[in-house]
Amino acid sequence: MKNINYGLLGSTGKLGKEVQQVFGEHQFNLVYELSLESETEKGIPQILIDCSLPENFENTLSLAKRFHCPLIVATTGLSAAQLEALKTLAETVPVVQSYNYSLGIQILLKLISEVQKYVDDWDIEISETHHRFKKDKPSGTAIMIRNAVEKSEVNISSLRLGNVFGEHTISFGGLGEVLSISHSASSRRTFAEGIFRSALFLLKKEKGFYTFTDVINEISH
Amino acid sequence: MKNINYGLLGSTGKLGKEVQQVFGEHQFNLVYELSLESETEKGIPQILIDCSLPENFENTLSLAKRFHCPLIVATTGLSAAQLEALKTLAETVPVVQSYNYSLGIQILLKLISEVQKYVDDWDIEISETHHRFKKDKPSGTAIMIRNAVEKSEVNISSLRLGNVFGEHTISFGGLGEVLSISHSASSRRTFAEGIFRSALFLLKKEKGFYTFTDVINEISH
Amino acid sequence: MKNINYGLLGSTGKLGKEVQQVFGEHQFNLVYELSLESETEKGIPQILIDCSLPENFENTLSLAKRFHCPLIVATTGLSAAQLEALKTLAETVPVVQSYNYSLGIQILLKLISEVQKYVDDWDIEISETHHRFKKDKPSGTAIMIRNAVEKSEVNISSLRLGNVFGEHTISFGGLGEVLSISHSASSRRTFAEGIFRSALFLLKKEKGFYTFTDVINEISH
Amino acid sequence: MKNINYGLLGSTGKLGKEVQQVFGEHQFNLVYELSLESETEKGIPQILIDCSLPENFENTLSLAKRFHCPLIVATTGLSAAQLEALKTLAETVPVVQSYNYSLGIQILLKLISEVQKYVDDWDIEISETHHRFKKDKPSGTAIMIRNAVEKSEVNISSLRLGNVFGEHTISFGGLGEVLSISHSASSRRTFAEGIFRSALFLLKKEKGFYTFTDVINEISH
Repeated sequence: MKNINYGLLGSTGKLGKEVQQVFGEHQFNLVYELSLESETEKGIPQILIDCSLPENFENTLSLAKRFHCPLIVATTGLSAAQLEALKTLAETVPVVQSYNYSLGIQILLKLISEVQKYVDDWDIEISETHHRFKKDKPSGTAIMIRNAVEKSEVNISSLRLGNVFGEHTISFGGLGEVLSISHSASSRRTFAEGIFRSALFLLKKEKGFYTFTDVINEISH
Repeated sequence: MKNINYGLLGSTGKLGKEVQQVFGEHQFNLVYELSLESETEKGIPQILIDCSLPENFENTLSLAKRFHCPLIVATTGLSAAQLEALKTLAETVPVVQSYNYSLGIQILLKLISEVQKYVDDWDIEISETHHRFKKDKPSGTAIMIRNAVEKSEVNISSLRLGNVFGEHTISFGGLGEVLSISHSASSRRTFAEGIFRSALFLLKKEKGFYTFTDVINEISH
Repeated sequence: MKNINYGLLGSTGKLGKEVQQVFGEHQFNLVYELSLESETEKGIPQILIDCSLPENFENTLSLAKRFHCPLIVATTGLSAAQLEALKTLAETVPVVQSYNYSLGIQILLKLISEVQKYVDDWDIEISETHHRFKKDKPSGTAIMIRNAVEKSEVNISSLRLGNVFGEHTISFGGLGEVLSISHSASSRRTFAEGIFRSALFLLKKEKGFYTFTDVINEISH
Repeated sequence: MKNINYGLLGSTGKLGKEVQQVFGEHQFNLVYELSLESETEKGIPQILIDCSLPENFENTLSLAKRFHCPLIVATTGLSAAQLEALKTLAETVPVVQSYNYSLGIQILLKLISEVQKYVDDWDIEISETHHRFKKDKPSGTAIMIRNAVEKSEVNISSLRLGNVFGEHTISFGGLGEVLSISHSASSRRTFAEGIFRSALFLLKKEKGFYTFTDVINEISH
């Protein structure tokens, strides 16, 4: 797939710039752009990417309706009501929503369910390290990891250090052994690539609400 | 299953002692014992455990034939010929053979094949750390891990430090992210428990050559 | 120094047994023994080791006075009043008191002050992992590490996993780099050896209150 | 110090760009620039920074002589003869040369000598992880770390994974404990800042050959 027109919300943010880089390399054309500073419309997007903020969510919804095209939401910190509105939208256009578009984190989630086939009485600990500027504790990804665990009340340790990009570890401890799975991100590019994979996935769908896990599942088959 | 009579080769070694502890807790009775120092026969074993050395392998074979009972081999460093002889024996009695009886390492092997469903162009690195007294480099377990990787020429780094019991890590590195799976053993008990699981598994078999992976597979179903 | 008579409080505990092993290897003779079960007196100890519990502290004090000999306290969880009483005792006999007798942890404490000579605006995070049976959170050693940091309000993450013996990490994070110092204990023997070093140290002192840091300082000169 | 004119060799490389960013923030003016593509001279530099390649070394030497100003060499892979020529140059102008300008690595080197005051019979292992594009094995920094160890024949494990920026670990293992010091770099900026520190250091010197360790030593006093 080439020469696809796409629109980008939050185009001047760090992730937005990375998305432009990756989509450009695949000959996708940026025809609609919305940022805090300005709005530019050069054509009709065939797919919309939202890398903005929850405050911009109303714009996201109305643009998806206006262009009636697939939507990828990479905004973090959406409210329950906003997620609900997204699911309603998904009844008419296809939507992918995730708090983390890295392939490695998706694989880590798969591995967790694999481990749990074999051990159910081992202790579980989750820890995450991020840069000192990150405000939410624990990270959205750590919460996603905890939700993948079939166990109530799993402890999450949050460390804030320098400008660490993002590290997540889940450890399973039995008497006599510890098994750990760790993921470390070293650039935003990995997220932009996940968003691009999601675009390829969505362009073949009619409608429906999907997560990045659904995107990855299709790859492995 | 209780009151099972078992025999133990290498009963005075470190692993042999741990096996006695775990099997004793499950009301298994030690009725045959062979060590460098002595041989004691108090009854007919219904299962044999070999925690001795490759040098003792001839004894292992003849005892398994004499008692015509299931055999678990935890001896490391067997030659190709010895493994072959074991497979021949397995045509008449059931046999489990493995270089590592910890549950965690078996799970790690499963996770490797799971990861490989999603990534095939990521770099792979294996590393292992053991106590300064370990003579083989790399460890048998590290080789087992490398064999689980669908890629030729994977590098293994071997570190020798103090009396570290045994640590193994496999890392997958893509551009922008690294996913690592680590296993750390902290006591021999975990191996003795794996041997006990293998005993329960074998006591229900008629014949056949099995690995500890087969034992674990049965657990997860 | 050989053929020294020593007394041991808490002789049947895990650390007490390890102390007997190490002191025995150096031809020290156990002539006085106190445990939850019994008291045995075969001679006059020239030094006393306390590996018991805070509840036994009154016995420790009165025995040190009765034998008028050096005292090593390895009991954890002493109250401020008990530490005060120990310092009063130290006016007449030499005393070493510490919550961690491993050489590595003492070196880690030294390294912390070394790092702080160069960086003062880096983030600091401390984490510790121990077995699931450990009740105190954070560990006494983690608190000792935090006290070595010239900064208020340093976060400590506490993980509880299987039967991990004891791991402590302190990380310093600047913009663009992270420096971490980690210590991992793999056997109680290391603590018993630290106690033996402290015994050699104390047998040359007349009186005074010392920490294990003082013992280690003497070694490096 | 502000409004200093500086010259930059290798100005279009990754490190060169980062140097421009950091020096610009401190109001240093780029007046001389040399890259593979072009040479630009807008004024007389008061200090020269070399972030180019060993192949360019002859230019570096002659420019330093021509401008008769302090020189910082961040080029890696210099030959013994080139280092010798640099030392001869240092008889007339001040020079700083290092293979790693991060503060953290310098602190790590200090910590190594601190650890060695206390332990001399512990095992030592060095490991380093870098991106798959790095050609030299082991890294120059790992060799620098090995040189800081008072022990012959220390093993270095080299791992190549994705686009890991640079990680170095040195571990000391005694019987019963392991002490590890790790450094992880997450951006080139940390190196550019070390080069800027070196510039401030050099601008106060008359002549002499210095390492980045000398620069850091001055900071801590």
